[in-house]
Amino acid sequence: MPGILALFAYRQDTGAVLSELSEVLLRGPSPLSRGERELIGAYVSGLNGTRFCANAHGAFAAAQLEGGESVVRSVLDQPTGAPVTARLRALLRIAAEVREEAGPVSAQALAAARAEGADDREIHDTVLIAAAFCMFNRYVDGLATDLPQDPGYYTEAAKVIVAHGYAMPQKPAEEALHA
Amino acid sequence: MPGILALFAYRQDTGAVLSELSEVLLRGPSPLSRGERELIGAYVSGLNGTRFCANAHGAFAAAQLEGGESVVRSVLDQPTGAPVTARLRALLRIAAEVREEAGPVSAQALAAARAEGADDREIHDTVLIAAAFCMFNRYVDGLATDLPQDPGYYTEAAKVIVAHGYAMPQKPAEEALHA
Repeated sequence: MPGILALFAYRQDTGAVLSELSEVLLRGPSPLSRGERELIGAYVSGLNGTRFCANAHGAFAAAQLEGGESVVRSVLDQPTGAPVTARLRALLRIAAEVREEAGPVSAQALAAARAEGADDREIHDTVLIAAAFCMFNRYVDGLATDLPQDPGYYTEAAKVIVAHGYAMPQKPAEEALHA
Repeated sequence: MPGILALFAYRQDTGAVLSELSEVLLRGPSPLSRGERELIGAYVSGLNGTRFCANAHGAFAAAQLEGGESVVRSVLDQPTGAPVTARLRALLRIAAEVREEAGPVSAQALAAARAEGADDREIHDTVLIAAAFCMFNRYVDGLATDLPQDPGYYTEAAKVIVAHGYAMPQKPAEEALHA
């Protein structure tokens, strides 16, 4: 299995909690859309050089954002000129600061986001998403997981995530048996 | 509320999942003892300069490790000379590499850990703990949470964590009502 899926299979108890974290953080209630949250995750993963996460969450963002793949590619390439809202660009700047090191987000980045209408909760969620991808990226790359062989893997994975979310199937055979 | 507790109170749905992650990762089944795992977390937090996490998890490590506070202080100061097993020293080196950047742990650090008897699962858990603290530290410092006023806070917190773990109370009043 490629990427983080191999690690979730290896240690299932932490895998289940990390899947739940992705579900709550990237798909649960938030003023940020699911596409915007996936884009922040893909952007941080790109900055960290973690190809599996950047490709996967880039595909999940593309499937849920107006503008699709071309917007995602443009943000991962250079967010300052990307065709996203000024508010989202300001949040991406905050995410980049969080990725850089553990330390307070700069007053300038906060002021810029507030000037574009970002509220406390949007800033909070951006910081936590960026921080969480600093974990996921280190986990995936630290243990040198494989990339998928099939280049179509990510768009197929996006269909599953968009339709069903991140929750890990809990012993489906056993559940079916007792259904 | 100081540190991450303020953030868990602010967004309770992610707070509950992050508490569960701490519980499974730092106290669930693992070949590493609870004290060793807390020490890895405290060490990474110290390298990241996140005082709240370094002090808190340092206290949790001290409460569960032979040698207590002096061992913890010595590891946070300079692990190469610290009075811990050679196996744990080798795992701390892996944790430091994971903290540094998202990228594969070096062949040298892996070989050194294996030479001291570390197995796959110990290496896996070390990498995930180090990665998770890169998230927790960024979350706590990115949003500039407060340190506790009382210097005795951390040892009091250690008593609670050692006795009860990290699980957040789930609406105790409501549960009591329906008991």
